[in-house]
Amino acid sequence: MISNSELRINSERFKKDFEELSSIGRDPGGGLQRTAFSPAHMKARAWLKAKALESGLQHRVDGASNQIIRLPAEDPGAPIIMMGSHLDSVPDGGVFDGALGVLGALEVLRIVREHGLSLPVTLEAVDFSDEEGTLVSFLGSAAMAGRLTPEMLANPRGDSQALKTGLKMAGISEQSIMDARRDPAHLLAFIELHVEQSDRLENASARIGIVNRINGIGFFQVSFIGLADHAGSAPMETRRDASLGASDFILRARSLVMGDFPACLVNVGDAVFLPGKFNIIPRRVNLSVEYRSTIMKEHESLAIVLQQTAQECAERFNLDIEILPLGGGREPYETAPEIQQAVQLAAKSLELETITLHSGPGHDAQMISHLCPSGMIFVPSLHGHSHSPLEESRMEDCIHGVNTLLQSVLRLACS
Amino acid sequence: MISNSELRINSERFKKDFEELSSIGRDPGGGLQRTAFSPAHMKARAWLKAKALESGLQHRVDGASNQIIRLPAEDPGAPIIMMGSHLDSVPDGGVFDGALGVLGALEVLRIVREHGLSLPVTLEAVDFSDEEGTLVSFLGSAAMAGRLTPEMLANPRGDSQALKTGLKMAGISEQSIMDARRDPAHLLAFIELHVEQSDRLENASARIGIVNRINGIGFFQVSFIGLADHAGSAPMETRRDASLGASDFILRARSLVMGDFPACLVNVGDAVFLPGKFNIIPRRVNLSVEYRSTIMKEHESLAIVLQQTAQECAERFNLDIEILPLGGGREPYETAPEIQQAVQLAAKSLELETITLHSGPGHDAQMISHLCPSGMIFVPSLHGHSHSPLEESRMEDCIHGVNTLLQSVLRLACS
Repeated sequence: MISNSELRINSERFKKDFEELSSIGRDPGGGLQRTAFSPAHMKARAWLKAKALESGLQHRVDGASNQIIRLPAEDPGAPIIMMGSHLDSVPDGGVFDGALGVLGALEVLRIVREHGLSLPVTLEAVDFSDEEGTLVSFLGSAAMAGRLTPEMLANPRGDSQALKTGLKMAGISEQSIMDARRDPAHLLAFIELHVEQSDRLENASARIGIVNRINGIGFFQVSFIGLADHAGSAPMETRRDASLGASDFILRARSLVMGDFPACLVNVGDAVFLPGKFNIIPRRVNLSVEYRSTIMKEHESLAIVLQQTAQECAERFNLDIEILPLGGGREPYETAPEIQQAVQLAAKSLELETITLHSGPGHDAQMISHLCPSGMIFVPSLHGHSHSPLEESRMEDCIHGVNTLLQSVLRLACS
Repeated sequence: MISNSELRINSERFKKDFEELSSIGRDPGGGLQRTAFSPAHMKARAWLKAKALESGLQHRVDGASNQIIRLPAEDPGAPIIMMGSHLDSVPDGGVFDGALGVLGALEVLRIVREHGLSLPVTLEAVDFSDEEGTLVSFLGSAAMAGRLTPEMLANPRGDSQALKTGLKMAGISEQSIMDARRDPAHLLAFIELHVEQSDRLENASARIGIVNRINGIGFFQVSFIGLADHAGSAPMETRRDASLGASDFILRARSLVMGDFPACLVNVGDAVFLPGKFNIIPRRVNLSVEYRSTIMKEHESLAIVLQQTAQECAERFNLDIEILPLGGGREPYETAPEIQQAVQLAAKSLELETITLHSGPGHDAQMISHLCPSGMIFVPSLHGHSHSPLEESRMEDCIHGVNTLLQSVLRLACS
């Protein structure tokens, strides 16, 4: 019998499963179309459930549509180590984001079970619902952490009618989401394995990233409001063209962050021009703004300065402004030191070079940190592409990542 | 029996009819929702047909869905004076734009018929289809003037699938549109009565505008193309964010026109961000650009300079660019001097103060000028609002406008 520290995953099985899962929702152009609760996403969820059951693991779905796969300890009162990530994707996303962490967690449970290890902990592999926010960002992990309120569900980042329809389609309700809140009493730790989504590991030729901080994120919609008029008669000088304030804001938000908040990020991901006709001066432009930062103090001041900037852009072009703060934001988070240390030791035992880095994107780990100590393991993304069909990681690195996850969990379980 | 020069329209009937027509497609907020071939537009068309028939006038619909109401001269070979405008509106438009010219033309035919005037000309009142370009700008008048080609229909300013569906709904086809081309042999003149859509008449306290030129108009779609990436991980410095080039272009196009082309206009009426998600850097932004000018030479150079500017904006942010010229443009046009003169004399005989001015917006008259001498009569728009529920003109001014149309036509008919 091999010792715990010599245990490795079944690489061939993992690779085969990864390829199978990757084909679900992948279009001929290589993009993954597996937005939350879409037919492809539901198919991927069913695939995971079947894999769990055929591996002799327990499976349940909570009120927020999270899939929870379980390998119970002998002692029903044993503490729990949770792993996981998500199977949903952004539109036209990549096959690694989320899926790696779910499949890695499943593999850890399978290997522990197959080797008959008797751990003093229960292990769980969780597939969190709607991490990418098709309906509500981090729906599943936020619900499990009790971070969703009825007010937030009433004012989602997306369309509230779409949310209602989506929840119905997923077979869940506002009440069942509230009921998904989990008792933290028995939760020992949470670890999420994920692709890095930028190129720092690749540039450092490191195999494993130990995540020390995760960016906070906030959203708002800012609307610039002018006056619709005939584009062929209203003089240029007196137009109240909403597109001018919006364009000025897009350019100034970028300069502001690059100049005054170099550790932060901003994105204006969408703009809607109303009425949106060639021959009508835009009366209203709605911008979707997202900002991120790793430090709480910067996070708060960036939000204020961005909104002041929007106000200035509106005044410059004689426009009115409406700012709608949106739910689903997350505060910056420092990962648990004991998990960072466990990952460090695990990688060392596997002779994998590590660097410590922060995460720009948010992750389910950030939500679960409200329940128990949480941390993350990153594997390299080639060229750093993410949320794109160009997303790519080496299978070899992914397997290193799952072995690091396995060894980290074993260390935490027995510490 | 009164002399031709003493003839006046039936103001009470005109006012009542105008109110009736205005109610078709008007929403509770005051906006007119009568886009081409919408149920409200079809209802307005049917209303007009009924009015024409009950007034003892002839009615037919041509292959481009133009409604042609006719009061024939005794001599079937008599020349024709055409009047008219359009019953369709932009989304959320006003009740005067287009409708005034159609109803005014109908009223002229009715008055001439009721007074038993035996004119040496046939009179026509035309309701041109889709002036506002829901499917194809100036569909009806362009088709009648033979200015539409199968290529233009294959590459409309809007969605080509929507065009196909729309044509089917309107009961017309590409072939029938080509067949609507009219023989110019018997066409003596065309006059269109319309609201001014800016505030020059109001500022000059004039009642009647004599239109000397109509702006040329051109359209293109410019797409800025970058790279989709995760908004939480890609560094600000290296992003290829399509929204930056698009925003820069919107601001610079305005400065360019105001600085170097002061007699021209530009509008970016719509922008579509792709994929349009909070957390994805926009990979592509499609802008709908429209430009206008009264002088042919400026019209051509403005198009070139705008496209060069777009290229510069793309290069500044490391983006690619695609420019798609769109059909439906019109060259700048100088109205026929004999019609300007007829309107001038008509207004003088009615003791209405006139000014001579150009039209920023395009009009059906511009298309029909390819068939016969064409001109326009403007009545004041209050505060110059147009393509908006705020569009407003005094009924008194509208009635002056119709009387001026009547007197202009009688002068042209007997000259």
